[in-house]
Amino acid sequence: MSPLDHIRIVMVNPVYGGNVGSVCRAMMNMGLSQLVLVNPRTGMNMEEAQQMACHAGEILARRRVCDTTAEAVADCGLVAGTSNRGGLYRDHAKTPREWAPRLLAAALDTPVAILFGSEDNGLSLDDLALCTQFIRIPSSDAYKSLNVAMAVMICTYELFVASGAFEPPQERSLECPAAMREAMFAKWRRALLEIGFMTPETADHMMLGIRRIFSRGPLTEKDVQILLGMAAQTQWAASHLPPKP
Amino acid sequence: MSPLDHIRIVMVNPVYGGNVGSVCRAMMNMGLSQLVLVNPRTGMNMEEAQQMACHAGEILARRRVCDTTAEAVADCGLVAGTSNRGGLYRDHAKTPREWAPRLLAAALDTPVAILFGSEDNGLSLDDLALCTQFIRIPSSDAYKSLNVAMAVMICTYELFVASGAFEPPQERSLECPAAMREAMFAKWRRALLEIGFMTPETADHMMLGIRRIFSRGPLTEKDVQILLGMAAQTQWAASHLPPKP
Repeated sequence: MSPLDHIRIVMVNPVYGGNVGSVCRAMMNMGLSQLVLVNPRTGMNMEEAQQMACHAGEILARRRVCDTTAEAVADCGLVAGTSNRGGLYRDHAKTPREWAPRLLAAALDTPVAILFGSEDNGLSLDDLALCTQFIRIPSSDAYKSLNVAMAVMICTYELFVASGAFEPPQERSLECPAAMREAMFAKWRRALLEIGFMTPETADHMMLGIRRIFSRGPLTEKDVQILLGMAAQTQWAASHLPPKP
Repeated sequence: MSPLDHIRIVMVNPVYGGNVGSVCRAMMNMGLSQLVLVNPRTGMNMEEAQQMACHAGEILARRRVCDTTAEAVADCGLVAGTSNRGGLYRDHAKTPREWAPRLLAAALDTPVAILFGSEDNGLSLDDLALCTQFIRIPSSDAYKSLNVAMAVMICTYELFVASGAFEPPQERSLECPAAMREAMFAKWRRALLEIGFMTPETADHMMLGIRRIFSRGPLTEKDVQILLGMAAQTQWAASHLPPKP
């Protein structure tokens, strides 16, 4: 059981079905599954919700609907509210990255809720009063207000990353040992001489330039095998050159 | 001039106007402004684009349109491509958080492009061949594929955070000095005795419990002023109690 299973996303007074669907997809992308809607707009476009949820339709289908925010968070030990405004209690808001470890730790013991306000007005003072934590997503002063599904994405992304659930892609091939790299440079040296790219007099200098190019980043064994093959084939082509006049 | 001004978002073969609009809003939220569309779908719904761009309509209006990806990135020293698939060169993909400092550093000297593929198929092999860097956004194995605007949001968010442009909200009131906090506890002690919440015999013990409650987190001077006021008013109320029989 991951702590992410105990973190619920609460959308208060959502208006657009498309946003609710986008939230479902973002949640599934980031390993969350519990969605609660508080008093959603009557006549919400559920077709749009389905469409934007894409392969996260199950989160949409299993959403809980409550009349009040208090009901949605009643069993939660920790209730975090998102807001991009300052003033009052909101001045001790922290970023999602700062809060993530605290939320994950709490979620081991208790349900945790993160509240997101309506598209029009954000969270009301009554909603914010229910919060024990305030989240301020970093954003430009030129345009602070994020789309609600984007706000959910960033908060859940930070939780997912902090949870350690993601294993970064790994280069399967090891960094090439020097001896193999040297064999490759030696083969290139011969091939470049044979095709007349350089002369024995200029070879040392040119090879330093070529070594520099291939030292800008790590070379794996696979990389070196590719380069070796190119040199071998170059030598093959050189062997078919017409004899010098 | 911020390095963010030199980082362009390139959407290759975008299909939905709503996504293009969402990308504009995400970009403006995170301080970016240059959008390039490569060969967008004919008949794209630009009304939806406008609607989702919200207050970022200017980025949408000033978008550049190119026929090919090569044209869109021709002047860029660094070209990063996003992909959630593994295999081949993509195995040395890094996360947006890992790449952000490198991209920002490069953007001081050269235009930088980040490529995002179409909603259907992501980036093609031809597009990926143009990339010098590969980005893999952390996501759950259960559903790896992010909506394209969400992918843009996470990449630009990481760039914005790494740029240091965001100043976190700060508690304006200082942490309260011990003497002021002690004066507040003393006032509460008198008030709680006067309203009969505790007796002189239990007071020391009760006050330890109350001190513990108020030591769970930092108390600012403002907090202590509020608590002082409550104690003072409690004493005032106590002074109007009917005399004991």
